[in-house]
This record gives sequence, structure tokens and C-alpha cells, in this order.
Amino acid sequence: MNRKMQWLRNKMLSLDLQGMIVSNPVSIRYLTNIKAEGMLLATRKENIFITDGRYIEDVHNTLTLFDEIVVYDARGLSKEDYENFFIFCENVGFEENYVTYAKYKEFMHKFKINNFVETENMIEKQRMIKDEEEIENIKKACQITDQCFEYIVNYIKPGMTEKQIAREIDDYYYKNSEGTAFDTIVASGENSSKPHAIPTDRKIQDIDIITIDMGCKVNGYCSDMTRTIFVGKVPEYVKPIYELVLKNEEQVLNDMHESSSTKMIAKMVDNDFRLNNYDLIHALGHGVGLDVHEGPILSINSDHLLKENMVITDEPGIYIAGKFGVRIEDTVLINKGNCEPLTNSPKKYVIIK
Amino acid sequence: MNRKMQWLRNKMLSLDLQGMIVSNPVSIRYLTNIKAEGMLLATRKENIFITDGRYIEDVHNTLTLFDEIVVYDARGLSKEDYENFFIFCENVGFEENYVTYAKYKEFMHKFKINNFVETENMIEKQRMIKDEEEIENIKKACQITDQCFEYIVNYIKPGMTEKQIAREIDDYYYKNSEGTAFDTIVASGENSSKPHAIPTDRKIQDIDIITIDMGCKVNGYCSDMTRTIFVGKVPEYVKPIYELVLKNEEQVLNDMHESSSTKMIAKMVDNDFRLNNYDLIHALGHGVGLDVHEGPILSINSDHLLKENMVITDEPGIYIAGKFGVRIEDTVLINKGNCEPLTNSPKKYVIIK
Repeated sequence: MNRKMQWLRNKMLSLDLQGMIVSNPVSIRYLTNIKAEGMLLATRKENIFITDGRYIEDVHNTLTLFDEIVVYDARGLSKEDYENFFIFCENVGFEENYVTYAKYKEFMHKFKINNFVETENMIEKQRMIKDEEEIENIKKACQITDQCFEYIVNYIKPGMTEKQIAREIDDYYYKNSEGTAFDTIVASGENSSKPHAIPTDRKIQDIDIITIDMGCKVNGYCSDMTRTIFVGKVPEYVKPIYELVLKNEEQVLNDMHESSSTKMIAKMVDNDFRLNNYDLIHALGHGVGLDVHEGPILSINSDHLLKENMVITDEPGIYIAGKFGVRIEDTVLINKGNCEPLTNSPKKYVIIK
Repeated sequence: MNRKMQWLRNKMLSLDLQGMIVSNPVSIRYLTNIKAEGMLLATRKENIFITDGRYIEDVHNTLTLFDEIVVYDARGLSKEDYENFFIFCENVGFEENYVTYAKYKEFMHKFKINNFVETENMIEKQRMIKDEEEIENIKKACQITDQCFEYIVNYIKPGMTEKQIAREIDDYYYKNSEGTAFDTIVASGENSSKPHAIPTDRKIQDIDIITIDMGCKVNGYCSDMTRTIFVGKVPEYVKPIYELVLKNEEQVLNDMHESSSTKMIAKMVDNDFRLNNYDLIHALGHGVGLDVHEGPILSINSDHLLKENMVITDEPGIYIAGKFGVRIEDTVLINKGNCEPLTNSPKKYVIIK
């Protein structure tokens, strides 16, 4: 059995959990490396993956005997088969943050489960702490992102549209990685005031501001970086805001390490923004892994202590509705006494001439 | 109030539903045209959309007074505000096929709901029947898909990789529509035996088979089409299978119209495949709309009667593990007495020389 499935088995033992249904495809990939639709069952005696004809061939190619996972085609399973999987289990766990209410009821009925218990994000919590191989993948994705940023800064010229620039970033990622980790944001001029802008046909002006939020995937693992850059020059009215955002982004890099509190870090940024009459309108950061947004959340409402080998973003932003916005974001690895930014593109006034 | 929100209000009335929480972003877009994260509440007196700072500006730009939707920033809402929304509602509906078990519990607590009731996919069921505007959007997406297919058939040459071809399709869609409706599949040679193949670096051979599954979006509405095409010539051993798939795909087009049964249609294909010692390993088709996969499902396990103005796919396929596969798929509009294929690319032996 691989190390991560072994972890699941030990965790179940420690929680007196006799069975478990894993439904979230990202958790299934994390535990087994299977990239297919289906359900992973940990029964008393076996690990089982139930999928369908579309994926059977692929799943068999992914798994080895060492994985100790029995694969079933759902088409070959009878009502009795489902009822037998957990037959001697006093309780069975499920992912209450992934399984819909309708599926919850269906599972109870189909598997004849009497005691179907919530597992309080136990897999997601484990996913927050990255192992060496996972960190290597994220580092690689971050390096490619830095290279892509350098490439795109040289590519952008006034007259190009946001869509065209976003497409060029996507192309770069497609050629040099597994592709984008999320929909690339290129938001210029007044569009930059929307934190989640979708690229439009707006053309870059001779003097302009552009926020680019970009990330790619390497072996399924994501990177996430944002820079607000300028064309022609930096307008004077933008400078105080840019510098406030940058100061806070860098302060957070100083403050993040094992056992710092996500709430406290976010509160400090929030306070500094408020002192200057601005608001921190979105979370300050989030975990990055197989999902580009995963735990922990850095916000004034969250309450975690950072741990070694977490990978999280640091992304303060200020948005002036209808005018412009500034966001600066790095993906960061948490160490014992400090943190290591994994994205390292320049931050201080990148100006396209 | 717009026509779709008015429909929701009438539906709630007919079900004696006093409140409703709509959480699925696709349903929210369907009902309101809002493309943002958030929750739509239909309370006794008001329609409410709760979102956050990232989307507020955009939501205000989307809505007009006519929409009669009050927008709140979640940051400004207190515990009491949440408890007051449904205060005089004897029951509140939710989307049991979208809401997770954890959210279900959170909503009950946060909104102080005593009687939180399942709504049996009422919005998804309504979404199955398209209005004129929706059909126009899907037709447009299908036309662009036909044009893209013609373009790509002229583009493909031996030596190109699957990834390169997929990328070219994506580029075409990006330039001529809102982009892809799903991850484009280009599966050549033995890769075509996987129904859900991901494009690889495999190079197209001088004599080869390629399955291309492609679709784009227009105003959020999707198209979906598959063709299995050939390079050089059609190998003799492929012909009987290709012709069996094509015969069934065309037979289904003859059989689909208002009130035909999804189960019966799928059963006929399944029977014909079995007679020839093959299996129909995936569903025969699915609805297409704002989601590329939506209701109804055409399969031997489904049980719907088709209705006028449904848009569904017809996509039989046969897959010989490790060797090759053939799938032919059209997006089809259901009429009273017949059906109208909306994708019309050639099916009989497209051969790249």
C-alpha cells in the first residue's frame, strides 16, 4: 500500500473508523494517484475503487499490485455487492464538505450504512502539509510562472487586448507545463478594480495599469501569482496604494512561519488598510496544492496556526470601484522559523515602455 | 422581475414553498444572469443575492431595477440579518443535489430554518426545456463547432501531436466564441480506445485514427460534438465497427422526438451493440445547456420522456481496449414530431490525405 493510503488506514484506526467512502476526485488522486471519476472505499479488509467503463483501462494502467486497490466496474455490481462492502462496519466515514445532501442519503441507502459519520476534513487537513515530492512539483510550477511572467512582460504592447495577453500566458503554460491552474486574469485600466475580472477585448493604452493573476500545474500541483504592472508610467495617484499593498505583502512574508496565526496575520493587514481608509475585501491568502484554492484560509475569520511545509499564498489587494485595483500575490512555503517565497517575479514598479 | 425568476416564484407557489435558497452558480446564472459566487434567496417578500466584495461591482452592473433583486455584501450581514431572512417561512427549499451535507447543516443553523426541504431538481428540470434565446445560443455554438471541425480537418497533418491539435481547436474557439465548453479531447491510435482520453504528445501517424470531442460556449451555452476521423485510409478492421456506430447514431436521430423514451432509445443501441458482441460502456447522451452535461441522461438506466425544446447529445461509441475506439456525437434539438441535429459535420469517412 502506498504511503498516503497507509496514512488513511492509520487515521481511520486512530478514530475508530471501520469504513470510509472517499468521493472527492482530488482526494482520490491525492491518496491513490487515480485520475478518474469514481468512489474509493476503505472497507475493513480491502481498498476498493469503483469506476465505470470510461475509466477502467486508465485506472488499471495507473495502479500496481503494490497499491492493493481492487477495481470494480460499477456496471458489474449488484445491489447485494453494495450492501456487502461495509457489512460488518459499525460506522463508515464520509466527506461532509464534498458529498451533497442527496448523495449522503443515496450512500446510506445503497451501502446499507447505519452509522454514517462526518470526518471533519481529515483528508483536506492532511493535504495542507506537503511532502517533499509535492513541494518539488509546486516549486516547478512556480518557476515556470516566474518565467512566464518575464516572457509576458516583454510581450505586452499597447493596443493588445486583455484576451490576447491572457491567451499568450495560457499558450506559454500549455507548452511548458500541464496548463493553467485556473482561468488567467488579465484586467487592465478600470477592469483591474474587479478582483475576479474576466479578460475582455479592452485594448491596453499607452499609459495603463494591468493586474495579471496567473498559475500553472505540474503533476497536478498548482502555482498562483499576481502582479499589478504598468504601461508607460506609474500614475501618481496609484503610487500610495501600490506602496501600501506592497508594504503589507512584504510584511506578511516576514511574519509567516511555523505557528504564526492566520487570523493575526490577516488582522494586521486589515488594520493597516483601515488606518488608510481602505478595506481588505477578500481573504489574504489560501493553501495551494492539487487544488489552487485549498486549506488553510488566511483571513480575519479563520483560525489556524501555520505549520511547516504548508504552501499558501500571500495576496493583499486594494480595489477602487470603477477606477483601478492593485494586488500582489506570491506562493509561499512555510518553514520552521521563516518562509520561502516560491514565486520571485519583481514587484517594484514593473513598467512596460 | 425577469421571466425566469417569475417562473421560480410561481413554482414555489404551486409547491407551497415559502422560501428557497439557490446555491448552484449555474442555476443562479440561469435565473438572474448573475455570474458571481454567492447565494440567491427567495424570501416571502424579496429576492436577495448575497455575495462578497470580489463580485459586488460586477453584480450591480448586471442587474437593473427591473430584476427586483436586493444585493448584499456578506461582510455587512450580522447573525440577526441571516436569522431574519426566512423568519416567517414555514418551509424553505434547497438544492439537495448541489448543497453538501456540511452546507445543509450550516444553512439550517445560520438561517434558523426549521423545515428545510428538498426540491427534487426543480430548477434543473426547468433548465432542460430551452427557450428561444437559449436555443439560438446553442445553435450558434454548434455552428462555430462545425466551422472549427472543417478548419481542423484541413489543419491536421501526420507528425503533429494530439496536444498541438487540441491547442489549435482551443485557439479557434477562443477567437470565435467564449472558449471551450470542456477539455477538448484529441485521442489518436490506441489512445482513442479511452472515451475520456487527455491529449498526449503522441504524434499522428501516416495511417491513423483520431477521435476528436469538441465544444464551445456562446453566452454561456454549450455545444458538444465528436467525430472519429482517419489519416491516410480507413483500416479494414475498423470499418465494421465504424459502420455499426454510425448506423446507431443515425437510427437514434430517426427515433428522437417529443415523448420518445430515453431508456428505450438507449436500449435499442445497447441491444444492437450486444448482438455484435460489443458494449455501450457509457451513456448514449445527455442534455446540453449552460452545463455541457445536464439533464436528461439517455441511458438504459434513465427513465425520461423527451420533450419539445430539449437539447441533447446522441453519442454512441465502441472502444477496443488498447487498440482503438469510435465515437460519433451530435448535439440535437428535440421537436414535436422529429429532431434537428444542430451539429452537422460530415460523418462518413472523413479521411485526411
